[in-house]
Amino acid sequence: MSQVSLPRGFRSSGSTCGIKASGKPDLSLFVSDCPASAAGVFTTNKVCGAPVILSRERVPSAQARAVVINSGNSNAATGEQGIANARTMTAAVAQELGCAPEAVMVCSTGVIGVQLPMPVILKGIPGGAALLGSTDQHLLDAATAMMTTDTFPKLTSVDIAVGGGSIRVAGVCKGAAMIAPNMATMLAVVMTDAALTPEQCRQSLRFGVDRTFNCISVDGHMSTSDTVLLLANGASGVVLNAADLDRVRDAIQQVCQKLATDIIRDAEGADHFITIDVTGLATRDAAFRMAKEIADSALVKTAITGGDPNWGRIVSAAGYAGVDFDTAFVSLTINGVEVYRAGTPVPFDASALSKELKSKREVHLVLSVSGGPCSGTESVRFWTSDLTAEYVRLNSEYTT
Amino acid sequence: MSQVSLPRGFRSSGSTCGIKASGKPDLSLFVSDCPASAAGVFTTNKVCGAPVILSRERVPSAQARAVVINSGNSNAATGEQGIANARTMTAAVAQELGCAPEAVMVCSTGVIGVQLPMPVILKGIPGGAALLGSTDQHLLDAATAMMTTDTFPKLTSVDIAVGGGSIRVAGVCKGAAMIAPNMATMLAVVMTDAALTPEQCRQSLRFGVDRTFNCISVDGHMSTSDTVLLLANGASGVVLNAADLDRVRDAIQQVCQKLATDIIRDAEGADHFITIDVTGLATRDAAFRMAKEIADSALVKTAITGGDPNWGRIVSAAGYAGVDFDTAFVSLTINGVEVYRAGTPVPFDASALSKELKSKREVHLVLSVSGGPCSGTESVRFWTSDLTAEYVRLNSEYTT
Repeated sequence: MSQVSLPRGFRSSGSTCGIKASGKPDLSLFVSDCPASAAGVFTTNKVCGAPVILSRERVPSAQARAVVINSGNSNAATGEQGIANARTMTAAVAQELGCAPEAVMVCSTGVIGVQLPMPVILKGIPGGAALLGSTDQHLLDAATAMMTTDTFPKLTSVDIAVGGGSIRVAGVCKGAAMIAPNMATMLAVVMTDAALTPEQCRQSLRFGVDRTFNCISVDGHMSTSDTVLLLANGASGVVLNAADLDRVRDAIQQVCQKLATDIIRDAEGADHFITIDVTGLATRDAAFRMAKEIADSALVKTAITGGDPNWGRIVSAAGYAGVDFDTAFVSLTINGVEVYRAGTPVPFDASALSKELKSKREVHLVLSVSGGPCSGTESVRFWTSDLTAEYVRLNSEYTT
Repeated sequence: MSQVSLPRGFRSSGSTCGIKASGKPDLSLFVSDCPASAAGVFTTNKVCGAPVILSRERVPSAQARAVVINSGNSNAATGEQGIANARTMTAAVAQELGCAPEAVMVCSTGVIGVQLPMPVILKGIPGGAALLGSTDQHLLDAATAMMTTDTFPKLTSVDIAVGGGSIRVAGVCKGAAMIAPNMATMLAVVMTDAALTPEQCRQSLRFGVDRTFNCISVDGHMSTSDTVLLLANGASGVVLNAADLDRVRDAIQQVCQKLATDIIRDAEGADHFITIDVTGLATRDAAFRMAKEIADSALVKTAITGGDPNWGRIVSAAGYAGVDFDTAFVSLTINGVEVYRAGTPVPFDASALSKELKSKREVHLVLSVSGGPCSGTESVRFWTSDLTAEYVRLNSEYTT
């Protein structure tokens, strides 16, 4: 793995407090040494976890100091007691850091409908705080302690030269993708030493998440706990002009994209990593809806699992996205091979394309609209995985 | 099977014209001896088959005479030639019956993107017409010739006493459900000897389809060819008052429900037949969206496959339906066992419930909302199947 490092003024730790029966690490801390701007993007599920309710109240913020994350228990569907427990967790972290509880955000991932084991968590937080540090290993430890059924820790960092200085953006995430026994939760923390206002944080994060985390789908099931947090502490000391801000925004998007696609790459049971481009629509939303219907179609996914260049399933999935396009202007390529042009089938070597789909892990679908109603210049890139018998096995094993 | 019979004034046939390589029956005819009122409900997919485009032009009608259906080729994504071929098919049937081509509707199901083999079809139509008859066997033959990957023919009839006489409603359908190698097409023809105007046909069919065919989902993939047609020829001679019309409407719904649930029962690879009731919403649409998200969730389906009473997956699927409900008023039962009440988990014997889910084919989920935003008196019943490794195997086998 290439080097992944924390931005200046951030420390982190990963430790084991005893939530997981397996004895694996289950407590992550991310701390800014000075007050940071913070923003968050949260699940829109009406059934959401207590940590989502609490953290949502606390962003955007100009005084953020820390994020505490536990794995092994999602603290979701736990009622008023769950919210009280989430508050207590942030207060315990605040006490260690000497800050207000409101400066601490919290995320939880794991089993649903079970109250957090507060004694072990409250005992574990001082231990986690004592381990805080700024080395690459500290970041790796924190990314590891967030994992549930992930098979590898997900972290990345980017350095950019701007405003006569250097800015770093680092991010970690966990995505159990489709194999979570109870819930497929995605959590991410992005940190930067750029000086951003809370509003700049909010805009940059929304821009990045809309083009990355919101453009991945394993099985279309939205979690109760999905959370992406951005902390910007200004510790770089670099003064940013408008053009620099755009570059920081792009670096944040780049970090989010690496983390989001890592979730798809870690989708257990999946044989293929699928990139879907939908181009030529009047609005980004129309392109997004068409791409998402293709990504979520079980018939498209299973065709790719079987190495079948079954373009009828792909174009018909786009057809029920609620976008009023005309098929006479629609074309489709699969790994660069044109199979459908202007609404009619194109003869192609199906056997060769099938062989390629069976031997390669990467699949690239490009659905383009070149005229007619709803056409234009907007496009969307979307990522998904295929649907295998192994997915079904993993998700149907008895877990209650 | 209990007796299933054609209404008065209808004849049908099933024959083999040679579209299917297997040599199985592939041509169905349904004929009214006198001009009938007709209505249709069609796929809303923008990528739709030529028969859908043509039949949609011809209903509602007061002069309908016949429906011709071929299996083995969907005549979809076939451009202008496909539409010309669909027209030619209806003209050939019209010639046999001595009626206008516009009095004939057409449906096709099977492989996508391949032109119809017109010579064998045009040779087969006179043969099919010569076989037309009104016995139960004729209806069974017609239902059989529509089949693609169905494992049993789907047909039903209902007799009701109204207006001092008797009315019969009969219906046939084919639903390849999730196993179609290229497309999951659902076709149905409903016939009655009740005297209905075209507008009464349209209203009755819309009412019935909205509560039956539109409330089933195997994998959420909308076909290019889905079609339900209703023909009412008045051959019963019964004069209907307003109350009688409601009873006929209900009989049409009953026939549609039997056919629609038969499609779910024939979902190959499926181990469970799942009925989902969502109750207590302000609008039918809100209840429908919540039920559909539960039905389409791969995580809900695989939990049921594994006999896991994993209620977190069920309530969280309802949570992303875009309905602004409050979890504090939501409860859930699984096969009569309350697992979630007013937004909090209810202790239950998970092991006993799991045992029941593993041993029984039928699963009944009831999600009820008892107050708060978006609550009310509307409810929806929805049917679906589970998701098994066998589904993946069937749909990922190489078929191009």
